[in-house]
Amino acid sequence: MALRGNLLVGQSGGPTAVINASLAGVIEEAKKHPEIDGIYGALNGVEGLLKEHLADLRAEPEETIALLPHTPSAALRSCRKKLSDADYARLLAVFRAQDVRYFCYIGGNDSADTAHRVGLLAKEAGWEMRVMGVPKTVDNDLAYTDHCPGYGSVARFNALATRDAGMDTAAMHRVDVVKIVETMGRNAGWITAATALGREQPGDPPHLIYLPERAFDPERFLAEVKAQVERGRGCVVAVCEGLRDAEGEILVSFKHAVGTDSFGHSQLGGVGNYLVDVIAEGLSIKARFDKAGTIQRACGVAQSGVDVAEAKMVGGAAVAAACRGESDQMVTLVRVSQSPYRCETSLAPLEAVANAERPVPDEFIAESGNDVTSAFIEYARPLIGGPLPRYARLKLAPVPKKAGG
Amino acid sequence: MALRGNLLVGQSGGPTAVINASLAGVIEEAKKHPEIDGIYGALNGVEGLLKEHLADLRAEPEETIALLPHTPSAALRSCRKKLSDADYARLLAVFRAQDVRYFCYIGGNDSADTAHRVGLLAKEAGWEMRVMGVPKTVDNDLAYTDHCPGYGSVARFNALATRDAGMDTAAMHRVDVVKIVETMGRNAGWITAATALGREQPGDPPHLIYLPERAFDPERFLAEVKAQVERGRGCVVAVCEGLRDAEGEILVSFKHAVGTDSFGHSQLGGVGNYLVDVIAEGLSIKARFDKAGTIQRACGVAQSGVDVAEAKMVGGAAVAAACRGESDQMVTLVRVSQSPYRCETSLAPLEAVANAERPVPDEFIAESGNDVTSAFIEYARPLIGGPLPRYARLKLAPVPKKAGG
Repeated sequence: MALRGNLLVGQSGGPTAVINASLAGVIEEAKKHPEIDGIYGALNGVEGLLKEHLADLRAEPEETIALLPHTPSAALRSCRKKLSDADYARLLAVFRAQDVRYFCYIGGNDSADTAHRVGLLAKEAGWEMRVMGVPKTVDNDLAYTDHCPGYGSVARFNALATRDAGMDTAAMHRVDVVKIVETMGRNAGWITAATALGREQPGDPPHLIYLPERAFDPERFLAEVKAQVERGRGCVVAVCEGLRDAEGEILVSFKHAVGTDSFGHSQLGGVGNYLVDVIAEGLSIKARFDKAGTIQRACGVAQSGVDVAEAKMVGGAAVAAACRGESDQMVTLVRVSQSPYRCETSLAPLEAVANAERPVPDEFIAESGNDVTSAFIEYARPLIGGPLPRYARLKLAPVPKKAGG
Repeated sequence: MALRGNLLVGQSGGPTAVINASLAGVIEEAKKHPEIDGIYGALNGVEGLLKEHLADLRAEPEETIALLPHTPSAALRSCRKKLSDADYARLLAVFRAQDVRYFCYIGGNDSADTAHRVGLLAKEAGWEMRVMGVPKTVDNDLAYTDHCPGYGSVARFNALATRDAGMDTAAMHRVDVVKIVETMGRNAGWITAATALGREQPGDPPHLIYLPERAFDPERFLAEVKAQVERGRGCVVAVCEGLRDAEGEILVSFKHAVGTDSFGHSQLGGVGNYLVDVIAEGLSIKARFDKAGTIQRACGVAQSGVDVAEAKMVGGAAVAAACRGESDQMVTLVRVSQSPYRCETSLAPLEAVANAERPVPDEFIAESGNDVTSAFIEYARPLIGGPLPRYARLKLAPVPKKAGG
């Protein structure tokens, strides 16, 4: 017999361009199941849940739900909160009081951990509830899934942005010789690697790509930048904010680490700025850096159509699986076909997903350590949706010289 | 009688998203005039001209020319070069040898100065030549024109990016309390002001806007950020890279000023990073900064349709004017109607435009000094093309509390 009660959905961790598509997927699928009464949203994830700040999502107009997939960032608002034992007990009290029988938590590995513990506690307490994780992270570092919804769009943004910034450098390389494009990525270089998807021809930017999966050596970096600059068309370098030195220490973190979040993550950033200085000191060459920051993860106009569709699909699949009786699982994506590209959903235990990380594997990183491989391109290309808009390339046929000199 | 000979076009200064639309306008108009034989492009502006690096633009396929308006950055490549007397003499020698009778230089005020001097020199030497400036600058700081092609697109980018980054902060404001969006703008705050075009409702980000037209006072800044943070929904601050203190000194420039360009401009940037530190020290609040850098000026997907059309129009108008016998003029835009918005072209003397700058006028800056006025919004709104894509806004009707506590 179907488990009757309310469904609660929450969003957690850093926003993405498509986390609301997953929310729309959850809502639309929930509406198809008569055993689900209320469809509630937790405001600011578990933070709002602790305060019983819930929103009635059945009260939202159809038109709003239809716009959700194309609305970046977290419409229910998000949080980064590690819960205490007392917090978990409180959550359970709220679930019981609100008759929550279905809990879908959209987030990354920290959120999977939270959802797993919630599920355990409910089981111990004899409160029948189905707990499902919906994968979401621009970092693409969740294990057990081909990729994470949110990644395709941040990858598309960085492919577009690096191509554009690279064209800017191509035009200005005698003035702005080196351009650093700093991308997000705490522990994994997936986002930085995606800058390579902006290349169309050999020699196109980015010319160098540095991932946190390889120790960053300033001396080698300077030599590699110098060699590229000497080729005479400027040098575009993609770097990850989470670059590490040979000891595995973060290269640059903010001078003032205010408000380390409750999972103990410190504030990263500033690698681009730092490398501009390294290049000025080491090579006496002018560099500049672009750091799109949160713009890259919440960019509406760079949404990947594939990413939007998949984010919605995993949201729907979470509800469908819960209604089938599944619990304590995260929805995963399985690539069933590369050409044409197609993914289906599957499930993986929340406990396995929780706190696991998947760095960029060796086969996706060039031996040089400063580029990606064609295997990475093959993996990532379908995720950014359609091809990038076509640009003109002038032939620039030379006019014979006549002025002498 | 029509002046028969070749036309030369060059691009100068920082790239924009639509400088190639002006190039397409020049080429297409030139093809309509039988007195124009060769249509040549100078590679890297006057730098390439000195070396007689010219490209035959009649050899470019129609399809390439059709793609040009939608291709950001400078397809002929650009430069920042102040010419010596010997350089000017050399230019004249190249013009004579290549039978250049029409010279269109697409650029900002430095480029207008260069074009004006070229024209003077040709006149003195008795070389009949029509010299036209085609306005281009993301900074929007040219005088004598309603606005500059390039501005509408960088404005659209920053409206989109600030809206998106603001939604990111709205979702995460308990973790990332303050977000600094750093925009370009050396001496004028036009680009920063455009972040306000992302607002749809009162209270929407950006909550504070700081322009270089007003002296930046760190103490007042901290008080204003604190007041906004206390409203409880985070604080998004738009700042200009060219912010100045009460003495008119640039607030932050790079530690290593390598390669100051030949116009003596030093390298700006780092205001965002600096303000993150100021906020951490002064308020013990976590801030982060987004600095799209050159991505903002060369962003293909944020092109304004109005900007593309006008950039093309001014390119065509330059050639048409030159063929009518005009010279030593820059094409300007004149707003002939606000609703519906429509601009026509006119002309202003290159000498008047050269080295002049137009800061954001007082009537566009709020008395508080930390916002723009509705007059600015009215001025700038049409320039970004159509409305921004619509996003969902959830009503978030509260579910009655039942858990107590």
